[in-house]
Order: sequence, then structure tokens, then C-alpha cells
Amino acid sequence: MKSTSLDLNRMADALRFLAVDAVEKSNSGHPGAPLGMAEMATVLWSRHLKHNPANPGWPDRDRFVLSNGHASMLLYALLHLSGYDMPAAELQRFRQLHSRTPGHPEHGLTPGVETTTGPLGQGLANAVGMALAEKLLAAEFNRPGHAVVNHLSYVFVGDGCLMEGISHEVCSLAGTLRLSKLVVLYDDNGISIDGHVQGWFSDDTAARFRAYGWHVIGQVNGHDPKAVDAALQAAREQAQKPDGRPTLICCKTVIGKGAPTKAGGHEVHGAPLGKAETQAMREALDWTAAPFETPPELAASWSALERGRTAEQVWRLRFEAYRSEHPELAAELERRWAGTLPDSFVENLPARLAALCENTQALATRKSSQLTLDALAPLLPEIFGGSADLTGSNLTNFKGCVIAGRDQAGNHLSYGVREFGMAAMMNGMALHGGFIPYGGTFLTFSDYSRNAIRMAALMRQQVIHVFTHDSIGLGEDGPTHQAVEQVPSLRLIPGLDVWRPCDLQETAQAWSQALQRRTGPSALVLSRQNLPALSRPEQAEAIQRGGYVLRDAAQPRAVIIATGSEVQLAVQAQEQLAALGLAVRVVSMPCSSRFDAQSLAYQEEVLPLALPAVAIEAAQPDFWRKYVGRQGAVIGMQTFGESAPAPELYRHFGITAEAVVLAVRGLLKL
Amino acid sequence: MKSTSLDLNRMADALRFLAVDAVEKSNSGHPGAPLGMAEMATVLWSRHLKHNPANPGWPDRDRFVLSNGHASMLLYALLHLSGYDMPAAELQRFRQLHSRTPGHPEHGLTPGVETTTGPLGQGLANAVGMALAEKLLAAEFNRPGHAVVNHLSYVFVGDGCLMEGISHEVCSLAGTLRLSKLVVLYDDNGISIDGHVQGWFSDDTAARFRAYGWHVIGQVNGHDPKAVDAALQAAREQAQKPDGRPTLICCKTVIGKGAPTKAGGHEVHGAPLGKAETQAMREALDWTAAPFETPPELAASWSALERGRTAEQVWRLRFEAYRSEHPELAAELERRWAGTLPDSFVENLPARLAALCENTQALATRKSSQLTLDALAPLLPEIFGGSADLTGSNLTNFKGCVIAGRDQAGNHLSYGVREFGMAAMMNGMALHGGFIPYGGTFLTFSDYSRNAIRMAALMRQQVIHVFTHDSIGLGEDGPTHQAVEQVPSLRLIPGLDVWRPCDLQETAQAWSQALQRRTGPSALVLSRQNLPALSRPEQAEAIQRGGYVLRDAAQPRAVIIATGSEVQLAVQAQEQLAALGLAVRVVSMPCSSRFDAQSLAYQEEVLPLALPAVAIEAAQPDFWRKYVGRQGAVIGMQTFGESAPAPELYRHFGITAEAVVLAVRGLLKL
Repeated sequence: MKSTSLDLNRMADALRFLAVDAVEKSNSGHPGAPLGMAEMATVLWSRHLKHNPANPGWPDRDRFVLSNGHASMLLYALLHLSGYDMPAAELQRFRQLHSRTPGHPEHGLTPGVETTTGPLGQGLANAVGMALAEKLLAAEFNRPGHAVVNHLSYVFVGDGCLMEGISHEVCSLAGTLRLSKLVVLYDDNGISIDGHVQGWFSDDTAARFRAYGWHVIGQVNGHDPKAVDAALQAAREQAQKPDGRPTLICCKTVIGKGAPTKAGGHEVHGAPLGKAETQAMREALDWTAAPFETPPELAASWSALERGRTAEQVWRLRFEAYRSEHPELAAELERRWAGTLPDSFVENLPARLAALCENTQALATRKSSQLTLDALAPLLPEIFGGSADLTGSNLTNFKGCVIAGRDQAGNHLSYGVREFGMAAMMNGMALHGGFIPYGGTFLTFSDYSRNAIRMAALMRQQVIHVFTHDSIGLGEDGPTHQAVEQVPSLRLIPGLDVWRPCDLQETAQAWSQALQRRTGPSALVLSRQNLPALSRPEQAEAIQRGGYVLRDAAQPRAVIIATGSEVQLAVQAQEQLAALGLAVRVVSMPCSSRFDAQSLAYQEEVLPLALPAVAIEAAQPDFWRKYVGRQGAVIGMQTFGESAPAPELYRHFGITAEAVVLAVRGLLKL
Repeated sequence: MKSTSLDLNRMADALRFLAVDAVEKSNSGHPGAPLGMAEMATVLWSRHLKHNPANPGWPDRDRFVLSNGHASMLLYALLHLSGYDMPAAELQRFRQLHSRTPGHPEHGLTPGVETTTGPLGQGLANAVGMALAEKLLAAEFNRPGHAVVNHLSYVFVGDGCLMEGISHEVCSLAGTLRLSKLVVLYDDNGISIDGHVQGWFSDDTAARFRAYGWHVIGQVNGHDPKAVDAALQAAREQAQKPDGRPTLICCKTVIGKGAPTKAGGHEVHGAPLGKAETQAMREALDWTAAPFETPPELAASWSALERGRTAEQVWRLRFEAYRSEHPELAAELERRWAGTLPDSFVENLPARLAALCENTQALATRKSSQLTLDALAPLLPEIFGGSADLTGSNLTNFKGCVIAGRDQAGNHLSYGVREFGMAAMMNGMALHGGFIPYGGTFLTFSDYSRNAIRMAALMRQQVIHVFTHDSIGLGEDGPTHQAVEQVPSLRLIPGLDVWRPCDLQETAQAWSQALQRRTGPSALVLSRQNLPALSRPEQAEAIQRGGYVLRDAAQPRAVIIATGSEVQLAVQAQEQLAALGLAVRVVSMPCSSRFDAQSLAYQEEVLPLALPAVAIEAAQPDFWRKYVGRQGAVIGMQTFGESAPAPELYRHFGITAEAVVLAVRGLLKL
């Protein structure tokens, strides 16, 4: 041990004052957690974390996730002191517009921030996904004598993260999968916003995690650097065992530690200490440096630039040795890290899509999705599928896929009945790199995972959600399972592409677009029931525009817009209206966000303002006012569904071609 | 023990064949779980459950929740055999339109169904809420020698429920609160849809629940009536201990038990057994009765009509004794059960609302909400508030409220950081009766609880959600905390009233309406930041219509529609336009579902089709196309927010009075 505990305590104080000064200056933020976790952070970052501040993108770095993201100033102080591109000027702009120091850590904005945290429990889930990605990638690429993928994922969590249900989902799964390179440090300070947690959270957390099969180190004094160091050492040993388990280190801490009068209370959680307390803290800790300044000797102890450069250099040499023995593997691993699609995928895609569309059977789009996976997945080693215990219903598995498990690398995982956990783990896998994760559940249960879908969009991560059983069309399972509001609701998430395809070709195009969209998540909304093939091969490119004229008519007098399983009804209505001498156009709109991104000229060409419009979708109808206006008509679901065979339900709720015909005639007053 | 194990096994077979025959006839459904839980159900229902089939509304009945709702046919068979209003004809219409036997059990549709289940984990959470309601009501109303509130809540859960995160949230809290009258029977069959759960769920569930402080009875043979009976007896003893704990009974079972070749496999979970297997099962179990028929001696053993009548009668006599000693308490308890508001509330409401509105300070609507609670809560003993660890931010507590805890009855609970669990527990409290539950969190975390909000709407339960920090107006906490899509997204849930008030009067009216709405949930969406008082006392009634002319102008040339914190911007724009000689009307729309329920004439009066319209709301804008059409303008948030002080964010995102002025001028081409 080079640094003494005393040094480490002083280093911790350096974190403390940066956090306090920043919260004080912005007059907003959370000082309590940074103060309480200062020693934990110091020991981890200065003595264990493998990272290179000069290259936050080094693929084999350890990951660090601050799941209790409100402690953001702790992370910013760590980045600053370690030598990341985080100047003191940015600390002084804590929580100000366009600073690198927003209220909660934001991935993509701040170098060194591995994931965006704040919504409690999700950072932990991201880290479980990162540890899973590491394990899978190591199994796929490491070779004897060449452990080129070998890093840990460390997480700080608070009481809040551990109260959240998602912590159960992902920690149960992490235990089952033996993700031994996951190390969680629990900031057990006994305080949450409402006060002493004992009144609402009296779990024996150590016992709980042992029940998940974890390696638990309990009763660590979180303010004793030696104790924290020993625990981390034990965790790292566990991580390298062939049958190791994930580690939980329970650190007893005092919230706001260092604040002379406020430490240990819940008021220190989310409000500045105030001038007097800050001053008293400076005196109590004998801290004479000016605000935002760190004494040079401490700054030197903190800098990880040299250590980081050496660590990466050592690894680079190892990687070159790997490359010389396994040149193809090395090239492939670099491609995976870079996140570029394989050349063979790009080359073969058009032909495979075209071949798929030769199949003109009536198919459920969930089946079309599986056929697409059968065709495309073999071209994409980075694809990693799964389902929240509905594999055979979501049809997320594909020919030749390998089921991953505790002792088995693979490319499809049974996540168990854990929708939210799955979604947040997929975010972690995408953030880790090397994978394009996708996962399935019933559309109605997108509610469970909703905030993780949002987080993927906020972080612009490529995660693909497969939501099957997408409407009353699922039939007998009834209203709890029938998505009525979920399609329009998902469309509201900024940056999420929601695809609701009507047939195999649209489904294949949706998958193709989602796979090529490296900068954001996509949701594929798929039917349980069979749907006829409607789009023509030559419309492939039009589909990519999100909305297009599926079937036109000479001088149409109205437009019918539809998605997914209702496109067939639009086509039938068109035919019935034609028989009455009324020419109408049918627009299929599989992805409205894509359509909205087209030129106004294209949009106007497809949906001329002058033409009255009727939309039909077996979902809450308000969304369509955007395209049909106040005076158009929308045929949809104003209520929840019912339990009955699907065809009966469509009749019962009036979602029929006849209803469209009536609506068009109503608009045309004919 | 009157009935022998042999009898009980035979009774269980009666359940089995009804379940199998119904699934077979409808060619849809889940036979595996009913077959596996048949003995557990038989022992509980015939020997322990306190209920009266002739009166499913008896307030002191035990509650039974089938959290694994896909096993619905088990429950329907239980109701049928026990003597509820569930004729065999309804069993034959399993999963058909408008039957009493939908795919998943639906409260309100089927007598004896305590809650709607299907979305896994939530039934368990509802039951925790029921047990909490019982404990609180007992503490409030029971008197020495008069235990008029004294019933248990029993739940069946499967692996799926226990994998879901919500199970952690509510079971952790149930342990902390020592809800000893909660008894959970775990159908531990080791199988979920993807196969043997060991690959994705290897928790030591007994140890997990012990870590929550539960009384756990492990390793019970779920097919041995004696073993199940003994466990239930122990649970009931635990329930009556002064410091008792909730009980988990882990029943080892075989999924599909009784099906000769399919038992124990995952294919029996969700598909009919098929004719051959059903026939083989009849032979193997020596079952000669025709489909949907029960041999008379078994039917007689099953009938709970007499036992139920006696049990209720005994209780009624006890209640009359209570009434004679405590007439006022008895009357009050009956009122609480009936769910009618107190006369004093109805009488005092107008004056209290009027008094509130004398306060014309600028106030955050979260503060307005607290002031309203201060004024109204003392009139409503049935109100039960809480917060997911944000009490001081949501301001859900009120003057004189009593914090409830393990050993303390009260009317405000710290639920911990458990948004989903809180929402589903509130549903359970509402279903139990005696309470109007409300609970708070930040609006953005309504995502976490979304499916429970949906379930309240589906079940038409009076639950009130207090969602504060409702937009970029919360400022520095940044995009993870800034709701952008949540308001429009909540508006999509059928039957949910979403209120976004602009000042104290609108907030008070929103509360008043939510409290009087006995047949559905409401969400109150409230600001963190101060807002000026804008509505006038004489507009109280107009507010109740959900949308109204807040400030008119002579011969307006356009309408500006706004909600919540943006109404002040609409008013400023109106003034700026007036200065330019342009008369416009300002419409405040605190609750669009209420506005949509008004007559078309009223709607047209407020928002004439002929007038161009601009909407402003700091949220995803598409919703407003419903009112402004394709050619109107909407000023809102097309992206996620940022971390910065709120006023800067409003300017940055262009949500300003000036933007409204420009939009109106654009529409009028002036």
C-alpha cells in the first residue's frame, strides 16, 4: 500500500470540498452523498479502478457507475482530480446550462461518465448489463494466454437504488448468471429523503444478496480506507475465480460526513450546506485551500494520468500480442468495439431483404420478425437477443441462436419475468459496447420498462425493443394484456423510433432500419395474429421513409392512414369505396417519427392538406389528430379492450373496413 | 379436521377438471397453474378462507388474490364450486365476449374477484395494500372486546410474480410494517414460460423473505393437503400475534399436476392440454363426470354457502354489539365501507375552497396542493396519503397528519423509494375499502408506476396520484428528472383524469374533483416553481369543466390554449397582442378528459372551429393537434430537457410569451 490511510483520508477531503463548493456556488444539488461516499470513492479510484483519464474510451477500462446519480458532484470531482477533461471551470458551472456538470451525470456529455443516472436503481441495472457484456465478450474473444477482455464493473448504490424493484430483478439475475466481475458498493447511511430508513426499509440487505447467490462483504466501515481497500481486494479476487460470484460490499457510512452539525441527518441530502456550515467544515477539517482549489500535493496524489497511461500501454502490448496470434479475432473485436456493422451485413442486406419478401403468406408480424432474424442475425455476431420469459411468444429466438446462461456464452438470453431489468440491462450492454441488444415482451408490459426505454433515447443508445401482442388483436387474454395506449405513448418519447409494420416486408425494413440506427433506440410493435402481405417489393425504400402511399387511386378524394394490423382494413375500405365510385388513397405509416423527419414537400405529397383524412389504428386515437386535423376522423380505441377472440373484438369495437367507409363518406358528405 | 386428505384431493380434482374443460372448450388459456395449485386452493378455500359466497361484499371477509392471474380458471372454478354467482354456463363461456370468465380475472365484472390480475407482481402488491388497509382500519375502529375489523389477505403467487421487481418493493415494506395478516402462498413449480427457471431464477426465496423480516414456512409439499393445512394454520396463528410478521408459504408443486404426460413441463403453462391428454387425465384420475359437471358429493363438500352465511351472521351479531357500545364509531365505519363522503365534507367544501382562493400569492402548485390538503384533509378521515420518499418535495403531508408506521396508525406513509409498489398498494387499499389513497412522486417517475396507474383506471378505483416537479420548470436536476412526455402520455390512459392546474384555485378544484370522483383515478400534475394566481373565484365552476375561457377579449381573432405553468405565458402573450391591437382569447385546459366530456356546444363555444389556435405546454406537443388541428401552432418540447435554472431553460427552449405572440401573428399572417 503506497498511500497511507491518512493520505487517503486527505484525498477524500479534496473530493468533499469540491462537492461542497460546487453545490454551494450553484445553490442547488446534493452534498450529503458525495460527503458520505468520499472515502469509498477515493480508495476505489486511486487504488483499484483500471482507467486512463486521457482515454475514456479505452475498451478494456473498468466501468464505474454512480447509480445514486444525485451524488453527481462526487463523480465530477473524481474526474477532475483524476485528470479527465474536466477543468475546475466546469465544476464552477455545476448545474448550469451547457456545462459538463449537469445535475445528474449524463453519458455522452461528460467524458468518463459511463451512463446517465438519476432514476434510481437503473445505474445498477446498467452495470449488470455491462458485466454481462464483458463476460460474453471475454468468452467469445479471449484465448488462452490472451485475456484481452478483462475488466470489472463497479457500482455505487444508495438505499434508494436498493429499495427500487429493479434492483431485485437485475441482482437476482446477476447472481444466477454469476457475474463475478460486478462489484457493488452500498452506501449504507441509513438515511433517505424522508428521514431514517428504518421506518420503511429494514431489509437485511446482506442476507438478501446472499439469497441471490452473491459474495457479500458486510459491515465495512465506509470511512476507513483500509477496510474499504481490503473489501475491494477480496472482490477482485472473487472476480477472477472460475466460479466467482458478484460482490456486494456493504459500507456503513454517515451521510454528509464532514459537515460539523449537519452530518447524519436527512437535510444534508438535497440542499446546500450553507455558508456557515461550509466555513465550519473548512475549519473542522483544517482545509485552507480556496474554493475549487486542491492543494498541489493532494492533486499529485490524485492524478491518475501516469498510472492510466501505463495501464493502457500494458494492455495495448498485450493486445498486439493477441493480434499477432489471432489477427482475425483482433480485427473483429476492434470492429465490435468501434460499433461498425460488418461489411458482409451491408453487402448481403438488400438481397436478404428481397428474398424475405418473396414470402407472401399471411403471417403474424411477430413471425415476420423471427423470419427476419433468421435471415439477418447470422450476419451480425454482435446481436444479442432475449425475452422477459416470453421467448416462444415474442419469437425473439432465431435459427441457430445459442441460449446464453451461467456457464454458456450465447446470443439469446432468458431474462426471466423482468421487463424493466431487461431494458436497463440492454442499455448497459449497449453502453459497454460490442453488442446490439434486443429484447422482447408483450407491448402492454412496455409500461413496466418505460423509463429504461426513455433512458436509451436520452443516451442515444442502440437498443431494440420487440413488443409483440400489440393490440386487441391478441384476443382472449383480455384488457390487462391488450395494449390500447402504449403505441401512441411510446411515440411520445423523443428520439425513439416506433415501428408498427403491416406485413413481412415492412417488418424486415423495420428491423433493417433499427439495426442500422447506431444513435438511438427503436421499438418494433408486432402482431400476434396473421396479417396479409400488402406492400410491394418496389416500395422497400418508401417504407424507410416511415409513411408512404401504399395504394393510390387516380385523383383521390380522401386519404386513409393506417398502421400494422389495421392497414388491411384500410385496403379493404379502399376497395369498398372504389366499388361506390369513390377514389381514396391508402397511406401506411409504420414509423411516424421517420415520416416527420422527411421534407415538408414529401409529407405534403403523401398527405395533402387539402384532402380529408381518416386514420385507423387499434389504439387510443388522439395521436392521429396530428395528421387528420380536428375535422378528420380517427377510428381507434376509446376504452380498454375485452377478453374474446380477436375477430369478435374488432367487430365489437367497430374497428372495421365498414367503419372506415362510413367515416370517409361522412367527411365527403356522401 | 372434518374432511380427510383423500376428500380434499378429490375436491382438488374437481377444480382440475373444471379448469381443463374450460380451457379445452375455449381452446385458449392456461391449464398448468390451476392444476398445480389445486390442492393449495382447496385447502385454503375449504378450510381457512373466511368468506360468504352469497355476499361477496361482506366487509370483514378475508381477501383472496390470485396474483398469477393467468390461472384464472382456478379462481372461476373456486367461485363456482363455493357457491358464488358463477354458474357452469359461465365457465363454458371462458374467454368469450361479455362472459364473467375473461382471460384474466377482472374486478367489477365477476363477483368474488377482489382485484384484476395478469400483469405479474401487481396482485401481490394489491394484497399488501389490502393488508395495510385492514391493519389501519382495525387500529382506528376496533375497541377492546370488539374486533370488528379482523380479516386476512391471502395471495397466490408464481415464480413470475417473485421475479418482478415490484415483489421486492412491497414485500420489503410489508416486512417493515409487520403486516402479519398477509399470507402469501408461493406456487414453486420451477417452471416459467421459457422453461426451467433455474437458468434465470435461482434465488433462495425463503432466505430472501426472511431478509425482509417475514415468517417463512419453507419446503411445503403443495400437493399434500395436510402439509398445506398445517402451514396455513401456522400463518393464521402468526397473524394474531401482537408482533406478528407476514407469512410466506413456499409450496413445492408440479405444474400441470394430473396431466399424465404433460405435467412438469413448460408446454402445459399456456396451451390447452388437447383432447387425448384430457381423456387420459380423466382415466388416470378415475374421473367419470361429464365436462363442467361435478359429482354431487363433491359439490356438497365444496359448497361454502352455509358456512359462509354462518360466519357472516356471527360477525353481524358482533358488529351489533359493537354498535350498541360505540354507535358513532359503527356508523362511521359503515360510512367508510360504503365509500360515501362525510356530510361535513360536502357541506364545508364550497366555503373551504372559497377561503383558499383568497390567497392570491404566487405559489408552486405543489404548495397549493398542500394548502388544499390542509383545508380539506381534516374533513376526510378516509384520506390516506404518502410519498415514495419525497414527502418534503411532493408536499403530500398536511397540517396535523399522522405519520403511519409499524406500530403507529396514521394517515400518511413514507413508502420508501418504491413508486410502482406504492401505486399498486394504493390500488389494493382502494379495493379493500375504507380509504381514499393518494401518493406522491416526481412526474417523471410516473413511468415507474405507469402500469399500476393503468390498472386503477381499468378497475375504476379512486386513487389519486400527486405528481410534482412537472416539467423543465424543475430546473437543475436535468433531463432525467424533467418530464417531457409524461403529461401527454398519462392523458392516453382511458379513464384517468389528468389535472395540470395553473394556480391555487385550479389546484383546489382539481383536488375537490379527484376526491369526489369515486369511480376512477386522478393524477394531479404540479409545479415545483411558483405560479401567479390567475383564475377568478367566479370561475370555480368553469374549472370543473376541464377547459374554459380564462380571459376573453371582444371578438377574439385566435385562441391560446395552455395548462399549468404555461397559462401565465398565454396571459402575457394576450396582453402583448392586445398592445398590438390583436384580440385573442386565453383558454385554460387543466383537464382535457373533463373538457372532452362536455357537450359539443360547450366545446365549440370555448374553442370555435373557425378560430385559429395556438397551444403552449412545456411537454411533447403532438397531443394539442386535437384542439389546434394540423394548421394551428403548438409550442412545446420536441426534445429532452437540460440541467439549468428554470428561467434559463424556458428561454432556451423557446417556451415564452414572445413565442406565442409570434405564433399567433404567424397564423393570422400579421
